[in-house]
Amino acid sequence: MTTLLNDRDLQFLLYEFLDTEALLDRPRYADHSREIFDATLDTAREIAADLFAPHNAKGDANEPHFDGERVHLVPETKAAWDAFAQAGFLSAHWNENEGGLQMPEVVLRSAIAYFKSANVATASYSFLSIGAANLLRSFGMQEQKTRYLAQMGDGRFSGTMALTEPGQGSALGDITTRAELQADGTYRLFGQKMFISGGDHNLTDNIVHMVLARIKGAPAGVKGISLFLVPKYLVNDNGSLGARNDVTLAGLLHKMGWRNTTSTVLSFGEKGGAVGTLVGEAGKGLGHMFQMMNEARIGIGLCAAAIAYRAYLLTLDYARERPQGRRPSCKDPLSPQVKLIEHVDVRRMLLAQKAYAEGALAMCLYASSLFEDQHTHADPQVRRDAGLLLDLLTPVVKSWASKYGCASNDLAIQILGGSGYIREYQQEQLYRDQRLNPIHEGAEAIHGIDLLGRKVIMQSGAAYRLFRTAVDATLEEGRTFAGIELLSAGFTTPLARLDSVTAQLAQLQAGDPERALANAIVYLDAFGRIFAAWIWLKQALVAQRGLATANDADRDFYSGKIHAARYYCNWELPATLPQFDLLAGVEETPLTMQDAWF
Amino acid sequence: MTTLLNDRDLQFLLYEFLDTEALLDRPRYADHSREIFDATLDTAREIAADLFAPHNAKGDANEPHFDGERVHLVPETKAAWDAFAQAGFLSAHWNENEGGLQMPEVVLRSAIAYFKSANVATASYSFLSIGAANLLRSFGMQEQKTRYLAQMGDGRFSGTMALTEPGQGSALGDITTRAELQADGTYRLFGQKMFISGGDHNLTDNIVHMVLARIKGAPAGVKGISLFLVPKYLVNDNGSLGARNDVTLAGLLHKMGWRNTTSTVLSFGEKGGAVGTLVGEAGKGLGHMFQMMNEARIGIGLCAAAIAYRAYLLTLDYARERPQGRRPSCKDPLSPQVKLIEHVDVRRMLLAQKAYAEGALAMCLYASSLFEDQHTHADPQVRRDAGLLLDLLTPVVKSWASKYGCASNDLAIQILGGSGYIREYQQEQLYRDQRLNPIHEGAEAIHGIDLLGRKVIMQSGAAYRLFRTAVDATLEEGRTFAGIELLSAGFTTPLARLDSVTAQLAQLQAGDPERALANAIVYLDAFGRIFAAWIWLKQALVAQRGLATANDADRDFYSGKIHAARYYCNWELPATLPQFDLLAGVEETPLTMQDAWF
Repeated sequence: MTTLLNDRDLQFLLYEFLDTEALLDRPRYADHSREIFDATLDTAREIAADLFAPHNAKGDANEPHFDGERVHLVPETKAAWDAFAQAGFLSAHWNENEGGLQMPEVVLRSAIAYFKSANVATASYSFLSIGAANLLRSFGMQEQKTRYLAQMGDGRFSGTMALTEPGQGSALGDITTRAELQADGTYRLFGQKMFISGGDHNLTDNIVHMVLARIKGAPAGVKGISLFLVPKYLVNDNGSLGARNDVTLAGLLHKMGWRNTTSTVLSFGEKGGAVGTLVGEAGKGLGHMFQMMNEARIGIGLCAAAIAYRAYLLTLDYARERPQGRRPSCKDPLSPQVKLIEHVDVRRMLLAQKAYAEGALAMCLYASSLFEDQHTHADPQVRRDAGLLLDLLTPVVKSWASKYGCASNDLAIQILGGSGYIREYQQEQLYRDQRLNPIHEGAEAIHGIDLLGRKVIMQSGAAYRLFRTAVDATLEEGRTFAGIELLSAGFTTPLARLDSVTAQLAQLQAGDPERALANAIVYLDAFGRIFAAWIWLKQALVAQRGLATANDADRDFYSGKIHAARYYCNWELPATLPQFDLLAGVEETPLTMQDAWF
Repeated sequence: MTTLLNDRDLQFLLYEFLDTEALLDRPRYADHSREIFDATLDTAREIAADLFAPHNAKGDANEPHFDGERVHLVPETKAAWDAFAQAGFLSAHWNENEGGLQMPEVVLRSAIAYFKSANVATASYSFLSIGAANLLRSFGMQEQKTRYLAQMGDGRFSGTMALTEPGQGSALGDITTRAELQADGTYRLFGQKMFISGGDHNLTDNIVHMVLARIKGAPAGVKGISLFLVPKYLVNDNGSLGARNDVTLAGLLHKMGWRNTTSTVLSFGEKGGAVGTLVGEAGKGLGHMFQMMNEARIGIGLCAAAIAYRAYLLTLDYARERPQGRRPSCKDPLSPQVKLIEHVDVRRMLLAQKAYAEGALAMCLYASSLFEDQHTHADPQVRRDAGLLLDLLTPVVKSWASKYGCASNDLAIQILGGSGYIREYQQEQLYRDQRLNPIHEGAEAIHGIDLLGRKVIMQSGAAYRLFRTAVDATLEEGRTFAGIELLSAGFTTPLARLDSVTAQLAQLQAGDPERALANAIVYLDAFGRIFAAWIWLKQALVAQRGLATANDADRDFYSGKIHAARYYCNWELPATLPQFDLLAGVEETPLTMQDAWF
C-alpha cells in the first residue's frame, strides 16, 4: 500500500486549521457538502495510488523519446491522464455553466496533492493544462473558448505555457518570438521556445500552447509582449482537427528528474508561420500570463510540498523498521540493536522533514484559501485583502516550499544512508525530482526581488500590514495559551527586526535600488522563516485546543503538531537574527566583488 | 580545454598558505625539489584532463553491468587506471625501499585532486587501492607484503575496504561475517558485505579485499572484530595467480552518482569459505581499519572539494558568458543584456561557491600537512601535536567539505537555472556525484558524535587547546593588520561561545551523555564554520601580504582571496550564534519527540 499523504493531516488542514466547511455558506458551494469534498479526496487518493504511483519509477527509468515523428511515453502515462480527466479533475473548479463542478480551490488543490506525491512527472501534464485553460477562461474570446475549452476540460486537448526562449532565461522582457497579423485577424508566429514542459507527447489529440510573442512593431521590453493561442493541430469550426500547425519539436531535453514530463525545444514558423490567435489585449500578454504564473507558483509550492511529504512518509517507515546500532549511553554490545528512529539525530531529521513537508502543505492550502476568499467571499473588503495577502505571499510560498522541500528530500537520503543513494529505493528519484522546484516558475532570486522590491512596498505597504496584523492576532491568542506561550514569545525579536529592516530597505529602494535589493534573497528566506513559524504556531494552537477532547490517536497526532511547531520555532526561527543583522548592515561583499577577482 | 582546478590557487595553497618547500629540509625529501613537486602536479593535471575527464559523462550514462560472470566498465576506465598506475601515483608516497617515490602527502593529495575533479568515479578505484595497500604496509606480515604489495603498487592488483553489511549500516560493532581458523593458519570467511566500492571490475588481474570479520568465538562488539586480507584470486608463492577464491559478486547496486564506480554486494564463503589471512592483531581489526578510514575521511573531503571546485569553475565560465536581463536600476529595455555575473545575487552565489570549494581544498591540504608533520617532522612534540590536531579535525574536514560541497553544487545548478537541471550540461552529474560524500566514510551524525563525544575531550581537551592556540595566533596577527582587522574582530564572540559550550557539554557528558550529545550535529556545524573561517582568515592574511608586491594578475587573485574571506566571515560565521544558543540551552525537542507523534 502506497501512502501518499497523511490523510489525517489533510483533514486537519482543511477542517481544523482552515475552516473549509464555512465555504458551504457561500452561494457557489450551496450544493456541496463536506461529504462531497471528502469523496473528491478519496477519488484522488485512489486514482493517484492505482494509476500514478505505480509507474513513477518506470517513467523515470524509461525517459520519453522522440522517433523523429512522435514522442513516446511509458503507456501508463496515458491511462493516468485519462483517469484524471474522466474523474473530472481538469475542470472540477469550473463553474457549472462551463461544465465544471464548482469545486473550491482549496479542496481541488488538496486532491491534486495526492497526484503530485504519487508521480509529479505524470501529474504535470494536467497541472499545465489546467493553467492554460484558466488563461483561456479569463482572457479568451468567446470564439476561442468555444473552439478549445470543452476539449481542454475533458482531456482530449492538453495545454502548455510557452514563455522561455534559448537566449533569454528569466528575463521575459527579452523574448524575441514574433507574431505577424494576417488579413483574417489571425497571426503567424516565428521563433523558438525552450524548456517547454509537455510541449509534445502522445497523451491527447491536440496540444494548446499559450505563447508569449511580440507583435511586429511592438515596443521593446515587457510592454510589447502579447499572449497567443497556438494549437499543435488547427481546429475546425465543428471542433474536429484540421491541418498540422507549423509548430515542430526541435528536440527533447534530458532532465535530472521529472523525466516522464517531456521538456521540449519548440520551433514556431519554420514552414511559413505558426497560426495563432491573440488572447486578451495586445501588449498585455505578460500581465495575462502572470495569472497563470501566480497560480503555477502556488502549484510549484504544492509540488515541492508533495514530494517532500512523500519522502517524509517513506523515511519514517524506514526509520521505524530498520535496526541500527545503540544509543550513546548503552555500552553493552550484546544488547539488541535499536531502530533508527531511536537515535536522537534521526528524530531531529524526521522532525525537520515533518516541519518542512507538513508546513509546506499547510502554506499552500492557506494560499489556496486566500485565493478562494479573493474570488468567492461575500465581503468586497475581505476579497481585496485576501488578494493582496496572496500577492504578497506567493513568492514566499513558492520559494520556501521549494527550498525546504529540497532540504526534506536531502534529509531523507541522509537518514537512509547508502540505501538513500541507490535507485533500488524511491528516495533517490524524489531527491532528483524535487531539485527542479527552486528553478521553474522563477528562480529564487526572482522571488526575493519580487517580495522586497514589489510586494512589501505595494500600496504603501498595505499587504505587509495585513500580514503583520494576521500574525499579531495569532500571537495574541498564543501568548495566553498554556503550552503555546513560549513559542509565541520567540516571535517578538524576529518580528521587530522584520519591521525595522522592511522599513529601512523600502526607504533605501527609492534612492539606491541596487544596494537595497542586493541581499533580497536573505530577506526572502528570513520572511519565509517567520511565515513558516506562524503557520506552525497556528497549527499548534489548533492542536492544543484539540488535545482537550482528543482520543488516543488524535492525542498523538496533536502532540506531533505541537512538537513540530516547537522544533521549528526553536531551531529555525532564531536563524533569522544574523540574517537581519546582515540586511540591516546592507552587507556589500557580493555587490563590491569584481569579476576579475573570481 | 578542461579546467579542473585553478592552478594558481594550488600554487598559493602549497607554497604560500602552507610552506611545502620547507619539507625539502627533512631527510626523507632531501632528493626532492619544488620542480619535482610541480612536475608531479603537471603530470597529474595532464593525465586527468586527457584520460579521466573525457569519459566522466560516458561512464555516468553507461553504468557498469554484470553479465553473470564479469563486470563491464566503459573501456576508457582501464586506460585511465593504467596511466595513473604507470605514472607511479599508486605508490608515490611509499618509501624508496618499498619501491616508492617518497612523495610528500600534501603534494600527492594535491595531484590526486585533479583526478577527483576530472572523474571522481574512475578515480575512486585508485583511491581505495592506495588505502588498502597502506593498511597492508602498516599492519601486514612480511609474507603478506611480499605476496601482494608490489602488485598493488604497480596497478596489477587493486584493493577495497569491506566493512559494511546489509544488516548493520553505520554500527560496525554489529558485523556478523565470521572467520574460522584453519590448521594451516589461514582463515575461511563466511558472510555478506554491502556497498563495497570497486568490489568487482575488469581493471586489474586481482582484487585485494580488506575485510572486517569476527573470528569464531570472539567477543561481541568492536573488540571481537579482526581484519583479514581476502583476495579475489589466490596468489601463488611466485606471485602468479592461483585459484578463484570463494568471493562472489551477489549484485551491483545502482547509485545516483559515481556510477562508473561499481558498488557491490559481495558474498564470502558460499562454496566452503573464502580464504583469508589475518592482518595485524586479532581483535584489533577496527583499530587497524581506522587508519584507512581516517585517511579515507580526508580523502572524501578532497573528493567533495574537487567536485565543488569543478562545479565552481564551470559556473564561473557560464556566468561570464551568458547574457541575462538587466540590473535593477536599469529601466531601459533597449539597453543590451548584461552577463549573468553582473547580477549581484549571482555574484553572491559564486562567492559562496568559491568559499566552499577553495576553502574545502585548503582544509584538506592543511590536514595533509598535519599528516606530514605527524610522520616526518624532526621534533617529536610537533609530531604528537600534529597527530592530535589531525585527529580532532578529521571529522570536521570530512563533514564540512561534504556538506558545503553539496551546497556549492546546488548553487551551481541554481545559477545555470534550467540548463543546470539537464544532462546536456555537466553540472547535473556533478550534483549527483557530490551527494554521496556526506554519506560514505561515516554519515554526518557519526562525525558529530566523534567530534563532541571523543575528539574535543580526549587527553583532557589537549587537541581542542591546540586548535584554539592556532586560531588565536592567527587572530593576533590579523588584529593589527590593515584590511584584515575587521575580519579578525568577527571571531571574538563565536570563539568565546565555542569555548563555553565545549566546556559545558564536555562536563555534561560525564553524567548525561544522551543529552550532552543530542545536538552534536549542531556542534559539528558550528565548529566547522569557525574552522572554515579560520582557514579563510589565514588565506586572507597571506593574500594581504602578497598584495604589496603583486603583479596585476596576482592583485586580482589576492583580492579575490580577501573578498572571499570577507564573504565567509560576514555571511557564514555569524550563523554560529543561534547554534550556540541552542547548544547552550541543551535544546530537547528531538530528544523528547515520541515515535507515535510522527
